[in-house]
Amino acid sequence: MMRKRIAIDMDETICDTMARHLDWYNQEFGQRLTKQDLMGTKIYHRVPAEHEARVRSYPDNPDFFVDLAPLPDAICTIQQLSQRFDIYIATAAMEHPTSFTAKYEWLVKHLPFLSPMNFIFCGNKGIVNADYLIDDSSRHFQFFSGQGVLFTAPHNVNEAADVRVNNWLEVGAMFLDNSIE
Amino acid sequence: MMRKRIAIDMDETICDTMARHLDWYNQEFGQRLTKQDLMGTKIYHRVPAEHEARVRSYPDNPDFFVDLAPLPDAICTIQQLSQRFDIYIATAAMEHPTSFTAKYEWLVKHLPFLSPMNFIFCGNKGIVNADYLIDDSSRHFQFFSGQGVLFTAPHNVNEAADVRVNNWLEVGAMFLDNSIE
Repeated sequence: MMRKRIAIDMDETICDTMARHLDWYNQEFGQRLTKQDLMGTKIYHRVPAEHEARVRSYPDNPDFFVDLAPLPDAICTIQQLSQRFDIYIATAAMEHPTSFTAKYEWLVKHLPFLSPMNFIFCGNKGIVNADYLIDDSSRHFQFFSGQGVLFTAPHNVNEAADVRVNNWLEVGAMFLDNSIE
Repeated sequence: MMRKRIAIDMDETICDTMARHLDWYNQEFGQRLTKQDLMGTKIYHRVPAEHEARVRSYPDNPDFFVDLAPLPDAICTIQQLSQRFDIYIATAAMEHPTSFTAKYEWLVKHLPFLSPMNFIFCGNKGIVNADYLIDDSSRHFQFFSGQGVLFTAPHNVNEAADVRVNNWLEVGAMFLDNSIE
């Protein structure tokens, strides 16, 4: 039997990209914003209007994506999932073309048990042919042919979702309880 | 009605990568190999064994992918196709991670009518969810869910193919004669 395929987003799903965003913003502007301040919104909308362009530009710096911390239990759960499913990493890297190398190196370092042949740098994730897509951005589910699984992030806490997981332990519980194969 | 999706490979399908490979080899080793010499084989197998490792390493140099010539009629045909189909560019960039930037810049320069959101840097193209995949490497068709269209290149001339196109004018004839929509 073909193994089912799970595609997994990087930023704010595997990687704690928001911690980096907050850190750079707080350092540059002497602020103390936290993830709690971003519930139901995005950092761009939460900062004073005169900071917005600067904050939006951080991901254009290649260093932004270097050495991001993995979210809790992400790596261990993905390794477990990889024993039963074909795992693909699907990241919208085309939005920040300067990020390619840092993203690739991050994946090779933190997910050495996956083949780089299973990494996908794309834009529109509707093109990904998988059974599941775990992602914090629900916009990717609209044209995705499989089941979207919304990974909770501050910006999406108020969104309705067909299927939502709040953390990687919940991902493990969803996929590793033997009901899905 | 949803437009059909055509995914298109880059190297030896849109770009004349083999001309670059021959050029670098001939320059370094003072040879005069031509595409005609590569019919039914790959350049790695056609050169003396002591040159093979060096020839295989050329694509690891980021400059290898810079300013490749487009194959005849490729750009014009893809522009025409883009009016009736959703076009995605799917390149196995993970095989040469140093190529990301050169490939991205090539696509933005030569196919400015496509959104970068439609570029896919991947490894295994079975993950691409499209109706057609035009590619010179038939190995990608094995796990591809749509119809593979083998684009003739020297190395594949002796392969059997469900659907083969010999050049971009044949691609245009196949997709633009109104029988496929």
